[in-house]
Amino acid sequence: MSESDTVAAALDEELVDAVPESAIDEEDRLRPEFVDRVLDAVEAGDDATARELVEPLHPADVADLIELAANDERDGLVRALAEIVDADVLAEMNEHVRETLLDALGPDAVAKIAGELETDDAVAIIEDLEEDEQRAVLSAMEPDDRAAVEEALTYPEESAGRLMQRDLIAVPEHWTVGQVIDYLRSTEDLPTDFWEVFVVAPNHHPTGTCKLSTILRTPRTVQVRDIMISEQTLIPVDMDQEDVALRFQKYALVSAAVIDSSGRLVGMVTVDDVVHIIQEEAGEDVLLLSGAGEEGDINEPVMESYRNRVRWLITNLGTALVASTVISLFEGAIEQMVVLAVLMPIVAGVGGNAGTQALAVTVRALATNQLTGSNRWRAVGREMRVALLNGVTVAALLGVGVAVVFANPLLGGVIAAAMLTNILVAGTVGSLVPLTLERWEIDPAVGSSVFVTMMTDSMGFLIFLGLAVASGLV
Amino acid sequence: MSESDTVAAALDEELVDAVPESAIDEEDRLRPEFVDRVLDAVEAGDDATARELVEPLHPADVADLIELAANDERDGLVRALAEIVDADVLAEMNEHVRETLLDALGPDAVAKIAGELETDDAVAIIEDLEEDEQRAVLSAMEPDDRAAVEEALTYPEESAGRLMQRDLIAVPEHWTVGQVIDYLRSTEDLPTDFWEVFVVAPNHHPTGTCKLSTILRTPRTVQVRDIMISEQTLIPVDMDQEDVALRFQKYALVSAAVIDSSGRLVGMVTVDDVVHIIQEEAGEDVLLLSGAGEEGDINEPVMESYRNRVRWLITNLGTALVASTVISLFEGAIEQMVVLAVLMPIVAGVGGNAGTQALAVTVRALATNQLTGSNRWRAVGREMRVALLNGVTVAALLGVGVAVVFANPLLGGVIAAAMLTNILVAGTVGSLVPLTLERWEIDPAVGSSVFVTMMTDSMGFLIFLGLAVASGLV
Repeated sequence: MSESDTVAAALDEELVDAVPESAIDEEDRLRPEFVDRVLDAVEAGDDATARELVEPLHPADVADLIELAANDERDGLVRALAEIVDADVLAEMNEHVRETLLDALGPDAVAKIAGELETDDAVAIIEDLEEDEQRAVLSAMEPDDRAAVEEALTYPEESAGRLMQRDLIAVPEHWTVGQVIDYLRSTEDLPTDFWEVFVVAPNHHPTGTCKLSTILRTPRTVQVRDIMISEQTLIPVDMDQEDVALRFQKYALVSAAVIDSSGRLVGMVTVDDVVHIIQEEAGEDVLLLSGAGEEGDINEPVMESYRNRVRWLITNLGTALVASTVISLFEGAIEQMVVLAVLMPIVAGVGGNAGTQALAVTVRALATNQLTGSNRWRAVGREMRVALLNGVTVAALLGVGVAVVFANPLLGGVIAAAMLTNILVAGTVGSLVPLTLERWEIDPAVGSSVFVTMMTDSMGFLIFLGLAVASGLV
Repeated sequence: MSESDTVAAALDEELVDAVPESAIDEEDRLRPEFVDRVLDAVEAGDDATARELVEPLHPADVADLIELAANDERDGLVRALAEIVDADVLAEMNEHVRETLLDALGPDAVAKIAGELETDDAVAIIEDLEEDEQRAVLSAMEPDDRAAVEEALTYPEESAGRLMQRDLIAVPEHWTVGQVIDYLRSTEDLPTDFWEVFVVAPNHHPTGTCKLSTILRTPRTVQVRDIMISEQTLIPVDMDQEDVALRFQKYALVSAAVIDSSGRLVGMVTVDDVVHIIQEEAGEDVLLLSGAGEEGDINEPVMESYRNRVRWLITNLGTALVASTVISLFEGAIEQMVVLAVLMPIVAGVGGNAGTQALAVTVRALATNQLTGSNRWRAVGREMRVALLNGVTVAALLGVGVAVVFANPLLGGVIAAAMLTNILVAGTVGSLVPLTLERWEIDPAVGSSVFVTMMTDSMGFLIFLGLAVASGLV
C-alpha cells in the first residue's frame, strides 16, 4: 500500500466515524454514507457487517436501500441480506425494482412470499407478473391464499377489489360491546391493523360502522346497533382506485367497507393503502403533461422509458410541422425582413408558457373534483380574465422594447398585438382542452400539453407574421 | 306566463324529476342539476327548500356547494344556509373561498367558529387572516382556546406544530389495559377521533404507542408497557409538513406523537390531516413547473393569479430574448436560405419537450425521496441513455423527412445532427438543473422549467443554424 493510499484509507475511516449514529437523515432518506458502508461491506464479502447495519431498519428503508443500489450491486446486496429482504420489504419496493428481483426468483419462492402478505399486497406483487409466471406462482400457493388472490384478480386493474383486504371484523347488530371485545380477545386469526368494526345484517349487508375508540369508551352492556354510525361510505368493488382515494380524502376516512354488486360486505380498504394512491395520482399529472408516461420513474428500465417518451416526441414532431407549415406561408415576408424570424419565437414561446399555466391549474382542479359542470364556464371565463391582464402587461413590455430597440414603432405595435392575442388564445385553449377531454372521458392530462403547445406555436407564428403582412410592415 | 314559458317550466319540472335521488355522482361530485336546484331555490327566496336539500349533506359536500356557486350567488346561499354552514363546513372549504366569507363576518363570529374546531383546524382558519384581524379574533376567543391557537401560531408556518392536535390520550407505562379502558369510559372530554394511545414516562417523554386494536384484544390485567410498540416515530414540532407527510406515507402511519425540543409529548398528528398535504404537495409540482404558483387554483382571486403568473411570463420573456439574440447572430444565413427559419422551431420545440420529460421525472423522484446523493449520478446517466435513444429515433425521422421534402440531403443531415444534439442537451439539463437546485436547497420545481426551456431553445437555434453555416449549407 503506497503512502497516499494509507492516507486515503485513514481519511475514509475518519469519514466513516463522522457518520452520525443514525442511518437516516432528517427527511427520512437513507444517508449516502450509510448506503456506501453497506455496499462496501457486501463488496468486501463481509455479509455479516452488512446484515448488522441493515437489521435495525424498517422494511420501507430496506426497500429504499435496495432501490438506491446500482443494478450491478443489487444482486449481491439482496443475496447478502437474504433473510432481511422478506415479503414486507418487497411490498414496500418500487415496482420496477421488485419486478427484476422477482424475475430472478422461482415461482415457488414468489408463492411463499405472496402467502405471507395480506391479500392486497400479494395482489400488487402478482398482478405485475406475466401471465405464464402468474399461473406458475398461483399454482404454487396454498389453496386459501390462491383463492383470495385469484378472486382479487377477477376485479379490474386499479379497482377497489384489487386494493381491499378481505380480512376484517364484522359483527351482528344485536351484539353488545362486551361481546365484541370478548370476540376480539378470544379469536386468534384476526387482521393486525384495523381501526373500525363493521356491523352487518344477517344477509351480510353492512348496516353501520363503529370506530374502535367508540367501542373502548362505551360500557360493555350497550348494543352495537346503538353506537354504530349508520351513514357509512360503501365502496363498490369495481370503483376506480383514484375515486376511492378522493373519497377517503374528502370524507377524512380511515377505513371503509367494500361491497359487491349485491351489496354484501366483501372487504375493506384502509387509509394506509390509499395514501400511496393519492400521492401517485396527484404526482401523475406532471408526468402525463410532460409526456413522460404515468409510470415515468427513475427506476423504469431505459427501454420502457424510451418507448413511453418517444411516442410523445414523435407526436410533438408532427405538431411542430404544423407550426413550420404556418411559417412557410410567410417565407417571402421573412426574406424581406429577417428580423421577423428573430422575434417570432418570443410570441410563440411566451404564449406556450401562458398556455401551460392555464393547463396546469385546470388539470389540477379537474383531478381534485373542484371543477364540475356547475363551474366549468366560470373557470374558462376566469382564465380569460387572467390572460387579459397577463397579455396586456407582457405585450406592453415587449411592444415598447421592440419599438425602441429596432426604432420601428409599427413593428413594436405588431408584436404587442400578436403577443396579447396569443396569450388570450393560450388561456382559452389551456382551459378548454382539458375540460373537453374530460367530457369525452379521456384523462385531461394525457396529450393536452402537446395540443396546447401546437396551438400557441402555430397561432403565435400566424398572428405575428400575418399582422406584419396585413399592417403593411413588409 | 306565455305558452313557451309554460312549456319551459314543464320541461324544467321534468328535468328536475329526472334528477336521481342522490345529489352526488359516482365520483363524489355534486351533480350540476342538484347545485342548480339549490341555487334556484335561494334565488326564488325559498330558503326552506334550499335548507331541506342541503341538510342531509356531509360538511365536505356543503363546502363544495359553496365553492361551486358563483361569487354573486355565494352570499345569498350562505345567508340561506346560515345554520348549516358551521365550523366543520368552513374547515373543509377552499381557503380562497373561506377567506372571502370570513372577511364578511365580524371577529366575534370568527372567534366563535374557531372555538368549535379542533386546534389544527382553528389554526388553519386563523393563520390566513391579516395580522390585525387575527388579533381581533384571538382576543374575542375563550382564554383556553386562545392559548392553544396562540401557541400553535408560534410554530413556523407549514410545520408539525400548526398541523397537530393538542388533544390526545396519554397514559403511564404502569397502567393496565383495564385501567386504560376504564379511564376512556369515565372521562368526558376526550378527542373524538384517535387511533392510538400514547404511553409516556413521568417526565412526559413518549416511550411507546398502543394501537386501539391491540388494547381491545388484550386481557384487562396486562400492563400497557408489555404491549406497547417502543419503536415509534416521534415528530419534532418544527418539522416541515411535507416531511411529516412523506413520513406518514413511508411508514404507513395512522397517527404519530409530536414532541417539543426537550422531547416532551405536545400533540399528535393524524393521517386525515396529512392526506390533504400529500395531495397538495404532490400536485404542487405541476403548478410550480408551469409557473402558475403553488397556490394556483380556480378559486384564487384573478388579481392574485395575475401577480403569481405574470412574474414567470416576464422571466420567460427574458429567456426568450436570449434565444432571439442567438437567432440574430445568423440573420445573414436566414436571409440566404429562409427555409432555416421555417425549420428551426422544430429543433427547439421537440428539444423543449424532451427536456420537460426529464425534468418531470427528476422532480417527482426528488419530491418522493427516491433520488438522493446515492443515486444522483446514476439518474443523470440514465436520462442521457434515454435521450440518446430518443434523439437517434427522432433525428432519423426528421432528417430523412427534410432531406426528401427539400431534396437536400445536407439540410437533412444538418437538422438530424442538431436534433440529436439538442435532445441530449435536454436530457442533461432536464435532470441536472433540478438536482442542482435541490443541492442549493431551492425547490427544484420552482424556475427549473423556464431555465430548461431557455437552454433547449437557445441551444436548438444555435446548433441548427451554427451547423448550417459550418457545413457550408449557406
